[in-house]
Amino acid sequence: NSKSLRRGLASLKQPTSLFAPLDTFQERHIGPDDAEASKMLSQLGYESMDAFVADTVPSKIRLSTNVVDNSSIPAYSESQLYDRAKELGGQNKSFKSYIGMGYHNAVVPPVILRNVMENPAWYTPYTPYQPEIAQGRLESLVNFQTMVMSLTSMDIANASMLDEATAAAEGMVMAFVTSPKKRTFIVDQGVTPQTIAVLRTRAKGFGINVTIGGAVALLEDKSILADVCGVLVQYPDVDGNIKDFGKLAETAHSTGALVVCATDLLALTKIKPPGEWGADIVVGNSARFGVPAGYGGPHAAFFAVTDKLKRKMPGRLIGRSRDTQGKPAYRLSLQTREQHIRREKATSNICTSQALLANMAAMYAVYHGPAGLERIATKVHKFTEVFKSAVAGFGYKLKNETFFDTVTLEVSVAGSADAVHAKAEAAGINLRRIDDKHVGISLDESVSPTDLVTLINVFASAVSKQTVALNELHEPEVNSIPAELQRSSEYLPHPVFNKHHSETEMLRYINHLAGKDLSLIHSMIPLGSCTMKLNSTSSMIPLTWPEFSSVHPFAPYDQVKGYHRIIKELEDDLCKITGFHAASLQPNSGAAGEYAGLCVIRAYHESRGEGHRDICLIPLSAHGTNPASAVMAGLKVVPVKVHPDGNLDLGDLQAKAEKHKDNLAAFMITYPSTFGVFEAGVQDACKIIHDNGGQVYLDGANLNAQIGLTNPATCGGDVCHMNLHKTFAIPHGGGGPGVGPICVAEHLAPFLPSHPAMPVRGEQSIEAVSAAPFGSASINLISWAYVKMLGGKGLVDSSKIALLNANYMASRLQGHYNLRYKNENGRVAHELLIDLAEFDKAAGLKVTDFAKRLQDYGFHPPTCSWPIQTCMLIEPTESETLEELDRFCDAMISIRQEAEDIMSGKQPKDNNLLKNAPHPISVIASSEAEWNRPYSREQAAYPLPWLRERKFWPTVSRIDDAYGDLNLVCDCPSVEELAH
Amino acid sequence: NSKSLRRGLASLKQPTSLFAPLDTFQERHIGPDDAEASKMLSQLGYESMDAFVADTVPSKIRLSTNVVDNSSIPAYSESQLYDRAKELGGQNKSFKSYIGMGYHNAVVPPVILRNVMENPAWYTPYTPYQPEIAQGRLESLVNFQTMVMSLTSMDIANASMLDEATAAAEGMVMAFVTSPKKRTFIVDQGVTPQTIAVLRTRAKGFGINVTIGGAVALLEDKSILADVCGVLVQYPDVDGNIKDFGKLAETAHSTGALVVCATDLLALTKIKPPGEWGADIVVGNSARFGVPAGYGGPHAAFFAVTDKLKRKMPGRLIGRSRDTQGKPAYRLSLQTREQHIRREKATSNICTSQALLANMAAMYAVYHGPAGLERIATKVHKFTEVFKSAVAGFGYKLKNETFFDTVTLEVSVAGSADAVHAKAEAAGINLRRIDDKHVGISLDESVSPTDLVTLINVFASAVSKQTVALNELHEPEVNSIPAELQRSSEYLPHPVFNKHHSETEMLRYINHLAGKDLSLIHSMIPLGSCTMKLNSTSSMIPLTWPEFSSVHPFAPYDQVKGYHRIIKELEDDLCKITGFHAASLQPNSGAAGEYAGLCVIRAYHESRGEGHRDICLIPLSAHGTNPASAVMAGLKVVPVKVHPDGNLDLGDLQAKAEKHKDNLAAFMITYPSTFGVFEAGVQDACKIIHDNGGQVYLDGANLNAQIGLTNPATCGGDVCHMNLHKTFAIPHGGGGPGVGPICVAEHLAPFLPSHPAMPVRGEQSIEAVSAAPFGSASINLISWAYVKMLGGKGLVDSSKIALLNANYMASRLQGHYNLRYKNENGRVAHELLIDLAEFDKAAGLKVTDFAKRLQDYGFHPPTCSWPIQTCMLIEPTESETLEELDRFCDAMISIRQEAEDIMSGKQPKDNNLLKNAPHPISVIASSEAEWNRPYSREQAAYPLPWLRERKFWPTVSRIDDAYGDLNLVCDCPSVEELAH
Ligand SMILES: Cc1ncc(COP(=O)(O)O)c(C=O)c1O
Ligand SMILES: Cc1ncc(COP(=O)(O)O)c(C=O)c1O
Ligand SMILES: O=C([O-])O
Repeated sequence: NSKSLRRGLASLKQPTSLFAPLDTFQERHIGPDDAEASKMLSQLGYESMDAFVADTVPSKIRLSTNVVDNSSIPAYSESQLYDRAKELGGQNKSFKSYIGMGYHNAVVPPVILRNVMENPAWYTPYTPYQPEIAQGRLESLVNFQTMVMSLTSMDIANASMLDEATAAAEGMVMAFVTSPKKRTFIVDQGVTPQTIAVLRTRAKGFGINVTIGGAVALLEDKSILADVCGVLVQYPDVDGNIKDFGKLAETAHSTGALVVCATDLLALTKIKPPGEWGADIVVGNSARFGVPAGYGGPHAAFFAVTDKLKRKMPGRLIGRSRDTQGKPAYRLSLQTREQHIRREKATSNICTSQALLANMAAMYAVYHGPAGLERIATKVHKFTEVFKSAVAGFGYKLKNETFFDTVTLEVSVAGSADAVHAKAEAAGINLRRIDDKHVGISLDESVSPTDLVTLINVFASAVSKQTVALNELHEPEVNSIPAELQRSSEYLPHPVFNKHHSETEMLRYINHLAGKDLSLIHSMIPLGSCTMKLNSTSSMIPLTWPEFSSVHPFAPYDQVKGYHRIIKELEDDLCKITGFHAASLQPNSGAAGEYAGLCVIRAYHESRGEGHRDICLIPLSAHGTNPASAVMAGLKVVPVKVHPDGNLDLGDLQAKAEKHKDNLAAFMITYPSTFGVFEAGVQDACKIIHDNGGQVYLDGANLNAQIGLTNPATCGGDVCHMNLHKTFAIPHGGGGPGVGPICVAEHLAPFLPSHPAMPVRGEQSIEAVSAAPFGSASINLISWAYVKMLGGKGLVDSSKIALLNANYMASRLQGHYNLRYKNENGRVAHELLIDLAEFDKAAGLKVTDFAKRLQDYGFHPPTCSWPIQTCMLIEPTESETLEELDRFCDAMISIRQEAEDIMSGKQPKDNNLLKNAPHPISVIASSEAEWNRPYSREQAAYPLPWLRERKFWPTVSRIDDAYGDLNLVCDCPSVEELAH
Repeated sequence: NSKSLRRGLASLKQPTSLFAPLDTFQERHIGPDDAEASKMLSQLGYESMDAFVADTVPSKIRLSTNVVDNSSIPAYSESQLYDRAKELGGQNKSFKSYIGMGYHNAVVPPVILRNVMENPAWYTPYTPYQPEIAQGRLESLVNFQTMVMSLTSMDIANASMLDEATAAAEGMVMAFVTSPKKRTFIVDQGVTPQTIAVLRTRAKGFGINVTIGGAVALLEDKSILADVCGVLVQYPDVDGNIKDFGKLAETAHSTGALVVCATDLLALTKIKPPGEWGADIVVGNSARFGVPAGYGGPHAAFFAVTDKLKRKMPGRLIGRSRDTQGKPAYRLSLQTREQHIRREKATSNICTSQALLANMAAMYAVYHGPAGLERIATKVHKFTEVFKSAVAGFGYKLKNETFFDTVTLEVSVAGSADAVHAKAEAAGINLRRIDDKHVGISLDESVSPTDLVTLINVFASAVSKQTVALNELHEPEVNSIPAELQRSSEYLPHPVFNKHHSETEMLRYINHLAGKDLSLIHSMIPLGSCTMKLNSTSSMIPLTWPEFSSVHPFAPYDQVKGYHRIIKELEDDLCKITGFHAASLQPNSGAAGEYAGLCVIRAYHESRGEGHRDICLIPLSAHGTNPASAVMAGLKVVPVKVHPDGNLDLGDLQAKAEKHKDNLAAFMITYPSTFGVFEAGVQDACKIIHDNGGQVYLDGANLNAQIGLTNPATCGGDVCHMNLHKTFAIPHGGGGPGVGPICVAEHLAPFLPSHPAMPVRGEQSIEAVSAAPFGSASINLISWAYVKMLGGKGLVDSSKIALLNANYMASRLQGHYNLRYKNENGRVAHELLIDLAEFDKAAGLKVTDFAKRLQDYGFHPPTCSWPIQTCMLIEPTESETLEELDRFCDAMISIRQEAEDIMSGKQPKDNNLLKNAPHPISVIASSEAEWNRPYSREQAAYPLPWLRERKFWPTVSRIDDAYGDLNLVCDCPSVEELAH
């Protein structure tokens, strides 16, 4: 009876009353309804959810009390959340920011705002590891790379970094590994303070000495130069100066040192690009290309290098390759660096990056094109010239003679900087606070003529001069960009940047690309360890409200009360969930969280006079970012064995912990393990570590299995990171953004990261790990909304259903596939690992063949060949309905039968449905002559009946990885190429 | 050189200065850039735009001065518009409305808001006349129909009407034509005042006598009953009563009179549906199913009838049919009624309806399902019970004993109604103003417990009683729905309403349907007479801001200052553009505008004692709505001949005008004509009419060709309508909403429509033509933004480029196709008519065959077989780039060659690329055995190279129209059917 089809969980039904809200989020978030959940439970042989959970989660670590429930975390309905977000947004004051320091107000073209940033087709896909169903965002990321390459005049650029400061740190490390014997890294004093802070943190782990000062002068000192591996300059610098670093580059290169240049894409339309004066590595922040400030992020940083450094680049690189039909196609190049990060050999741990924001920035360049960017840059520059002459007229002294958009003023004529700031504040304006004699002003695209007049008049009134009117301002005739540093080279000549300039064409281009990509709007993305769950609209809506999106990360605290309330509430709730004491939202990804957590552990040891502790035990099954992060934190990785069933080898752990007990710093463990195993011995393992003087880092990627059932503190951990872009429903954005906060036990709290723009947390804090004090602050709104709308009960129910869904799938696939692990009760955790080795042995069928064939069934393949080469790791999450789980299982079982036909010899081993997969329409449409396959087009396209109504089509055939890696081409085709 | 690729028109370039904004809309709106425009001009043989325009628009009617330019209509940049909209939005006060009267606050599920209402894939498609590329919205409209049928318990429902009042008027006319000898139509006094006003207007034209009173009692009077053709009741009525109309229906039926019932979908989940007590026609407003109030609209009204009336239904009806492969498929049934409205035989003129809003309402039902609707209705009802008992406790007297969500109170205990309203106002609340003794209160889904307490306390404080707190309120035990009128029957048992209840599933369903439909996000939709142009994001954004979306249409004027400013500015600008004196935004579609304009003309004649004038001359080439509107306004249509080249036969006009000069009321003419012809003789034609005592109605559907070049006043008209959903960029929404304002010359201004909720415009006003005083008020924002952002110059440039684009296409297609018309200079207007008769003659190839084949090329076909059976009418608009025009022309030329092969006998006449078109993927994928076609799959799918990269796929084969009309099935498949 349809009327009884109420949603939610019968066994867990919320108490309802007439006055309870109807728009409860839990009902919309959790896929299965009562009836479906009961059906799954009974299929697994359970009468209740409790009995199922008891068999699944080891009793030793089960939380006995209701630690997480609606009294500890009350649930808001969707409309209550909306109202609360409005209220808190209202507590952020919308001052006009001229603070600069690498952060500008952005003007987001409406067509990009609506159709990229607010469009689930763009924000819900996964990282494009499956290129046949990701050509859209791959093309857009190549646009990003091309844009960066062209504006910087560098040979190659990657597909984004987390922020400018960490990108600069990666540059520093690249310089260091290029000249590993030289330990000095020079940082010019014109670099922004947040970058300097992040460099200092990062330098520590690598044992690099960061020397800050006038870079040009420092390099002239031969005794210093001898030990220099690299130098970082900011161009234009934080005060606005545009300096000629050509000579500096020559000097550096004379001893093999590398020049890292932090720069600004908009300025590069006007000034000589770093690639033309000898920079080796160019980094920066692309946010002013149409990405809102969001109180610090997210936005995409960029990273570009010369050709000879290309194979050492961190991060993701998109390249052009070809498919089996010879059709050009994009893919992640040198992909092994990615998913299987080079573990302890790595020098970077970046995994999740900033794909969505890189796409927005690239689209901004597509929309404006070179002519549009030129117009914008001209306006920004000329407004700055107008401002400069006006304030010079009032008696202010300019600190910088040269500039693009930023001037630093000596303000003694006004008494003090405070006097100027007071006038600014009264006008609703924020200026850069430098010291009591200087203020900084950065202009940007958003500044209207009226804004400019208001700004000028702040300076007029601070010295009691007559205010000016717009019609008294005139186009300046000077140009404060030195003639020899003006850009003369062309940029962005590629067709893609020169044709989509009407909104209609832009909309079609955005949609055309989106149409090539499989995302959560199509079907489940059961990526083990990635937790691709519902990213609800109600949590996305506040994100693009101006009261949250247009806040500068260094805005004064009293203007950002709404944000701070949200940050505080989220930190508190994360502590309740993890069982820990304090949190930091600064890290911009899971990997960044790992790194931050390990730095905190090191600082803790140091504080106790045990700074020598530098051994980090890591199971062999750990995610590649774990050892990479350890190395970056200056730790030595000692691997720990794992049993074939996924459990840690406790004997090996004990032996190694004891062996290294004098130097044991930490142990990193993922829980449930990367095999999808709730290890009953986790507390014993942690005790071994503690007994030997170490701290336990718990990788929280799998936290979705735990909430309210157990927690990292109970397991025995001291610190954990969470991936808010997994467990806490920030969408993956096609490869980022992410947020990787850490929670720590009380004894570690004093060491949580600080930031130059943040009131100090305590004297023992480590320095910044991200450019912004609260990382990608704006998207914390999503996780905050998620937690608040589910409430404690909804969070726990979500974990329970995540477990149930995974176990249901295990029960359906079992018998067809070799389930690699289950516990003594026959249960898996929130994901399941199936081993396909038998198919390879019997018929040479690889994991990839199954994965590509799944694309033909309209699904994104699960995580492949990780953590075990021959396996697939399947994670459904709580958001998928029984019907969807069944569709996926049916597909897997059908493929199993197709494989059977190959193994039995009915179908040839080299020309079959799996090896030839995926089958795009162009292949299905091929002529009779070309269709030389021992199966029909219909078998290829519609192996199951529901595919006729509901099918997602890959747009290219299988892509040739080897070809792509050998022929690394990472930019857009040019006019000439297209002509061929 | 890429840097010179600036946008806009060289010849028409805006003066730029440093302080001019960069985000000018014109650059984004107009497709061709300078270079493209020049290329097209020179291809046509012109050196300047002026020379081209001079050859295109007859000099007689050319405006010599700059009537429309940036001084008469200044241009805002996109960000300026945003700021101005925010400012004006701030002038609307957001009071909580309990006014009711058919308008409720709606809670829009966020996933529907973002993914339907704010999604161009849903809001930019055209009316689904091409079902093979419209299965998504057709399915959704069938969901709407099914939802209405199930909730009302009627046999059949259509796919939406403009509003409840006009739907009721259509019901009245249906009753009248069923019993044409009986002229009395009874309207129960419980009907809303706006419906009564609209009925009275409509009754006039048909000569129906509307009698208002107690319907039950009136029908008991045999002398009255004898002349009654029908009766309208409101159920529940405007005061809240739920009356049993079973007996009334029996009485009405005893003499063959029909019962029209205006009802409420949410109430119907609780009360006995009209279909169960004998209603023949059921109408209402579906807005409370998740469609924002928007100060009156848009929203979808519904119209449901018993089986025997189904072939007389007005509006669009979606039916299930099958395609040539036998696959089930949806289509517009009885379609001829639509595009080729039954002209003077029609009793309804509805054309554009409310598809987008019907889809939103249907999606709301899909999202909530029967159980969710039941919960919502229960809450609304019980809150009303709680309210009632509370205020009864304060001494207020209830006027209605029975109710679902509305109570009417007698308030003498508080002194006067004003005293209550004063308290309400202080609490930010609007109540229904009835008279000085009564107030009305309607509750809805949006009312929170806190709102309820606040509301109750308004009534407490008005009588100085102790206020109550939430915890003092209790779930009521009474039920004010009479037992015999409680619903017992099941509703919405269909699978579609019972499975998409998680947000993930809902998102996938919305996207799955959207993916089947071609819209402006894919390619041009060159529909002659429909002006499918860019619907910009910046004009769409303010629409869903709460300050505009959540305003009740009868909110007091002083709370809606922002809206009124926008309405005033838009009216003024439309007057400047048309050359007229005053405007009314009340009509909800072009056809509604025609009707309103003709009523105004009739009122004018009456005011001069010439009420007998009832002849309306209409050219044979006129759109079907013209004669239909004339008939509805009580006019007799006399057709006027048209020359084969599209020009009016002035001789025939003269003759007929003279013949009818004593009774000549009006002449209706479309300009440029429906053939895409700027008739040089238009002023002569108008003079003939004026000389003979008539007024000229100018159908402004083609206004896009005119702006600033000529105007309806200059052409000689007295009144015109505009289709804001054509010329003024309101998106078509897949078949609506629309706005059809009229502008009139000064002598007609006193007669513009009034409305019961509007301060009277003048004593001579006609009564309301729409339910809301300003029609679909919220979407006027879009046209307002469009006009303001283009500014005068941009508007004129748009018209010029619209003309240029059409002429360029004409020049490319000429030689391949028979261009039916061009002027003496070889020019067409903004659209071109090509005649395909030769292909039919030679090889039996019909217009439809070309149209369906165009789908294979990824294009929406142009307007087909209108205004001439054998023709296609192609209108590119200014928003398409040269590249897109060329793609379309290439496709047409390629099809021409395919037709050649058929005519020459190379391909058979019955089995060829055109006759078999379109080719969905399922056909392309068919097995070798089934592919019995004399062409390859690749020829079918990829006839031109760019289709390999950019192709839109029809999802079904050609649909069998005849089958569908014979087997009229207009609801969703049931569980049983799906099981087969
Ligand atoms: C177990 C595990 N740890 C760490 C990470 C790294 O997280 P991020 O990609 O956010 O840097 C991942 C990412 O997939 C993971 O699965
Ligand atoms: C010439 C003409 N007149 C009137 C109309 C009716 O307008 P609407 O569909 O807005 O009712 C149309 C609609 O296409 C039309 O083309
Ligand atoms: O009927 C038309 O929509 O043109």
